Amino acid sequence: MIKKVLIANRGEIAVRIIRACKELGIESVAVYSEADKDALHVQLADEAYCIGPKLSKDSYLNTTNILSVAKKTGADAIHPGYGFLAENADFAELCRDVNITFIGPSPEAISQMGTKDVARRTMEAANVPIVPGTKGVIASVEEGVEFAGKIGYPVIIKATAGGGGKGIRVARTEEDLIKGINITQQEAATAFGNPGVYIEKFIEDFRHVEIQVMADNHGNAIHLGERDCTVQRRLQKLVEETPSPALDGELREEMGQAAVKAALAVNYSGAGTVEFIFDYKARKFYFMEMNTRIQVEHPVTEMVTGFDLIKEQIRVASGEKLSISQEDVTFNGWSIECRINAENPAKNFMPSAGKIQNYLAPGGFGVRVDSAAYPGYSIPPYYDSMIAKLIVHAPTREEAIDKMKRALSEFVVEGVHTTIPFHLKLLSHDQFVSGEFNTKFLDIYDVMNS
Amino acid sequence: MIKKVLIANRGEIAVRIIRACKELGIESVAVYSEADKDALHVQLADEAYCIGPKLSKDSYLNTTNILSVAKKTGADAIHPGYGFLAENADFAELCRDVNITFIGPSPEAISQMGTKDVARRTMEAANVPIVPGTKGVIASVEEGVEFAGKIGYPVIIKATAGGGGKGIRVARTEEDLIKGINITQQEAATAFGNPGVYIEKFIEDFRHVEIQVMADNHGNAIHLGERDCTVQRRLQKLVEETPSPALDGELREEMGQAAVKAALAVNYSGAGTVEFIFDYKARKFYFMEMNTRIQVEHPVTEMVTGFDLIKEQIRVASGEKLSISQEDVTFNGWSIECRINAENPAKNFMPSAGKIQNYLAPGGFGVRVDSAAYPGYSIPPYYDSMIAKLIVHAPTREEAIDKMKRALSEFVVEGVHTTIPFHLKLLSHDQFVSGEFNTKFLDIYDVMNS
Repeated sequence: MIKKVLIANRGEIAVRIIRACKELGIESVAVYSEADKDALHVQLADEAYCIGPKLSKDSYLNTTNILSVAKKTGADAIHPGYGFLAENADFAELCRDVNITFIGPSPEAISQMGTKDVARRTMEAANVPIVPGTKGVIASVEEGVEFAGKIGYPVIIKATAGGGGKGIRVARTEEDLIKGINITQQEAATAFGNPGVYIEKFIEDFRHVEIQVMADNHGNAIHLGERDCTVQRRLQKLVEETPSPALDGELREEMGQAAVKAALAVNYSGAGTVEFIFDYKARKFYFMEMNTRIQVEHPVTEMVTGFDLIKEQIRVASGEKLSISQEDVTFNGWSIECRINAENPAKNFMPSAGKIQNYLAPGGFGVRVDSAAYPGYSIPPYYDSMIAKLIVHAPTREEAIDKMKRALSEFVVEGVHTTIPFHLKLLSHDQFVSGEFNTKFLDIYDVMNS
Repeated sequence: MIKKVLIANRGEIAVRIIRACKELGIESVAVYSEADKDALHVQLADEAYCIGPKLSKDSYLNTTNILSVAKKTGADAIHPGYGFLAENADFAELCRDVNITFIGPSPEAISQMGTKDVARRTMEAANVPIVPGTKGVIASVEEGVEFAGKIGYPVIIKATAGGGGKGIRVARTEEDLIKGINITQQEAATAFGNPGVYIEKFIEDFRHVEIQVMADNHGNAIHLGERDCTVQRRLQKLVEETPSPALDGELREEMGQAAVKAALAVNYSGAGTVEFIFDYKARKFYFMEMNTRIQVEHPVTEMVTGFDLIKEQIRVASGEKLSISQEDVTFNGWSIECRINAENPAKNFMPSAGKIQNYLAPGGFGVRVDSAAYPGYSIPPYYDSMIAKLIVHAPTREEAIDKMKRALSEFVVEGVHTTIPFHLKLLSHDQFVSGEFNTKFLDIYDVMNS
């Protein structure tokens, strides 16, 4: 078993991982930038070391410094959390080279899933449904035009090296497409050093539904149900829930099996998420991408399954077999997560860094808070703006919504603006309550003025 | 359905009830003493009214003022919480007289269970096992001596009007007994206005195991499993858990059925707890008493059943039938509660009222905090010393213990002494970890110096 874990991250996910280590009796080593010396993860870990200046590139992305702390402290494993180095195949390989366990999948699996057209082809070969599209990167503009003519507009142009909403462009006409291919190729060459693009059918009305998978190094893989992350703003998830209000048992089972196939196809190990485009009108789903790391929204899965994903990541990385089999996975009730960001939702979600003068998290039955905030904590402006994840669990969706509203209403964060008022509005919005919406929800409805 | 609830209590249980009201869409009215004007329950309720000076007898026990606030605000129900007016049959009757729903059982049920020898006789008639003892109050010292001679020493002398450890005396010899009966009768006459005493076999080595029951006004009653509250200090519970490490499935079922019989025998309605003396050596259990209210330790039952006891109390008091049947009750995992008191465990648990300078409750997966504390809150010295209930939930007892230790270790309460250091020691104590102990645990082991 792993004995000492260095957490190459900050904020709530670093705290989350330290908590799992403590519960497992594993020592934890925090690393921090100069801007984070008063951070909660630094206080909670058994040891903590500064790894560089405030900017991520100099600290949380500074692999040399991170590995040297690992060596110095005798950490036998590194947990990357999400973001930063979490899906960096080179870093995973570097860890392997210096005999430190990277708590995550192999560099090969990260690479295969990180290159979009490779991932598409791998999924196709594994019989995981993919959105109709070109066979890999197009060789010419003409190839794109011919394909679009066959499947019909709109289509979407995607840079194979893109991600997170970058290197993507929709074309509704042939003229759009020709122009779009050229621009996207140029942009991708500049941004990612790889001009390759491919064309896909553009599914306009869809829900974002993803499946949590967990796999070990012995060829076993299971899924832990779905998360519905359809409520997004500019491709950033704001609210996640499980189960999805749009799935039925049959689709859940199909999607779960597809996700397991996806994981097995790349010899996956650890926690991963297979994201799907769910065309709810046609009741069809298509592989979007696989996130080869733990995700922000993992707690909702933990709430309904009772299964600790971070602890299992550590056990699996230690070489253990999965502690449960597919038949052991049961789903109880409903869970919703709201991301509480230090942003002003009344001013277009403008970031609101600063000092938290007063802080009191909600509590009580069915309420979970994952946060690195505390009274007097100064939120540095250099990293993401999330200050807490508020997660509720209740027998039904209706009760979970009522519980979330109750919990949001008693959450005290003074000194900075937060997205709490947005969430309160959203959870009272008829369309959200109905459960019937797609990823355009926030484009269609002006939630803050509803 | 009840529309507006007055909460005739303070502290964490008032907050707990307000939360349930909010989630049910029911208005809440807080009442408070002059010492509690800054209390969290006052801040969270929809309305709040001062009902008198700091001492409980002038405020939280001031039935006239409480009922007048209920009438003024149009509250159609009163939730008494625990303590104060919770088991006061006269108050329950007063509520009935003025057409306000008392969220709890009938005055008759409260009375029947509140008078010890009546409760004993009722249980005996209902085939609930009782400790061998005299048929009600003894008529003479000779009757007591004769009975003790028959069943053997030690025996226990109990004032029928006593409770909470008062009016109780153990006798190990006939001489002890004769002296003890006289003293207990005199004390009981003075303290309770009722000199009646009865004699029972004294079971020395036992565990305190209790069963949560829930009943409606339509003749239905179910049980929700047990809670083991064996870790006590001077008859005050400090740690509670469910399941009990000492029960097996058969005993659990027997005890559950006995508790349901007890509830049905007094036409019980709402949430109640049947406490048993569990003679673990003989694997036999005996009725101790029934608490006709919600209990401090109710959250552990909620964690493993997923069932909200306070919401069900409100629904049942509204006249609804039980929302679940016995077959719907399932038990998942293990839950432990630690009572965090403002006391100094290193100085014989001396109360430590004062201002909480800094406060940060633990969070994360499987951690629940029920508290009315906040940063800057001044704990008044007039009421009980509990400032938070820390509850954990995990798949196994071992994992629950590890999670509790993790949560306790990150709980920040500065400015007052707390029992957190005691709990940390206790949860690391081999005997606690083994699960094998009785109510003398803290008499036998010096936990703070272990």
